Amino acid sequence: MPRIFVSDDSIVSGLAVISGDDAHHIARVLRKRIGDRLTLCDGRGTDYECSIESITEDGVKARILREDKSSAISDTRITLYMANPKADKMDMIVQKSVELGVYKIVPFISERCVSRPDEKASLKKKTRWCAIAKSAAEQCGAANIPEVSDICDFETAVENASKHDLPLFLYEGETATSIKSVLSQRGNACDISVFVGPEGGFSLKEAQHAKQSGMISVSLGARILRCETAPLAAICFINYEKF
Amino acid sequence: MPRIFVSDDSIVSGLAVISGDDAHHIARVLRKRIGDRLTLCDGRGTDYECSIESITEDGVKARILREDKSSAISDTRITLYMANPKADKMDMIVQKSVELGVYKIVPFISERCVSRPDEKASLKKKTRWCAIAKSAAEQCGAANIPEVSDICDFETAVENASKHDLPLFLYEGETATSIKSVLSQRGNACDISVFVGPEGGFSLKEAQHAKQSGMISVSLGARILRCETAPLAAICFINYEKF
Repeated sequence: MPRIFVSDDSIVSGLAVISGDDAHHIARVLRKRIGDRLTLCDGRGTDYECSIESITEDGVKARILREDKSSAISDTRITLYMANPKADKMDMIVQKSVELGVYKIVPFISERCVSRPDEKASLKKKTRWCAIAKSAAEQCGAANIPEVSDICDFETAVENASKHDLPLFLYEGETATSIKSVLSQRGNACDISVFVGPEGGFSLKEAQHAKQSGMISVSLGARILRCETAPLAAICFINYEKF
Repeated sequence: MPRIFVSDDSIVSGLAVISGDDAHHIARVLRKRIGDRLTLCDGRGTDYECSIESITEDGVKARILREDKSSAISDTRITLYMANPKADKMDMIVQKSVELGVYKIVPFISERCVSRPDEKASLKKKTRWCAIAKSAAEQCGAANIPEVSDICDFETAVENASKHDLPLFLYEGETATSIKSVLSQRGNACDISVFVGPEGGFSLKEAQHAKQSGMISVSLGARILRCETAPLAAICFINYEKF
């Protein structure tokens, strides 16, 4: 059954009233008809199984048959701070990290980022990433649509990332501390940030700044993972610890 | 320093003699000169740090300065049995699973595979996947180049996959057994197979056949992962257990 995220004010006393893009998606793209069923998600952990009652130019009305707590809701919130990589790699990172259960994505620009979009291009990218996040969340059965923030600078990203309960700084220069040694000791942390650099990694100065700000520098193992693979591996490791 | 895989007969009494594509890669693509250093890997766990002594039309000769056991060598061998997915998704699966440390990849065709290449197309695909595996292994510091087998049929894949010490069958219909419950009990297994279906998953009949052949049906969690994400998550979970 198709899953569609709707704003929670669409759901009133047993009836869902859907307009705009979502109504278009249901009527035109999915070609749903009166009587067809679908699952609406309020993005706050509740799924509504519905039967379509009417399709008009104003939108779609659906009767709620059953409501359930989404099985994919998690107590752990992983916020991914991701340095903007080259080309369209961020598209894949957004799609896959949403599938793997990320809570929020904060793109940032660091010293070695090659792609440094101006304001207009940044807005365009953000719009694209938000659409990818919504579509990935609908497809994989996620309980909510992860937010993709505006692109920020390195200092702002570090400042915010270090405020999480367990702020992990993925650093290829780290040889002493593995992510597993940290996660196995601090596995009860529910609010985790994962901080990942661009193709060329972080400069020594950046790594020092992150550590001085309270982030925990960790290694993902002996292999050198590409910048688009590292965040996915880190999210998988956290998921496994929390399974 | 660039890492290049060479056949082990290239290395004789303190000298590496490199010809063909690898010599071309060193001289023309990497534009190395006499005196430059590089790391040659024999694909069996030894890395050789070398200094180039001569570059001629016949090839490249390099003096071995030091040899080391590759730090990325692992006692665990993960063989990925992957149903051939649509479009170029397998390219990404090969690249990422090599980065994450897969030992061997066996593509196969199952009931719901949409892409079913003929003999000629299969050979072309295999050649492409082998090249991606070599390049990914060189880039990520892997100890060996993972083999990519010929595309086989479902029955052959099940027969071979079930012979491994721990044969894991990733099945979205599995609700009772999580991959973590199996890995945490059988974490000492060193020869693991991971069996993954195409976009539409496995049919009930296929799942029954795999289980009857001795494979262990496991779930990756509440979310529905895409067919190209599932193998990467499974490899990450095994890596984490073995860290």
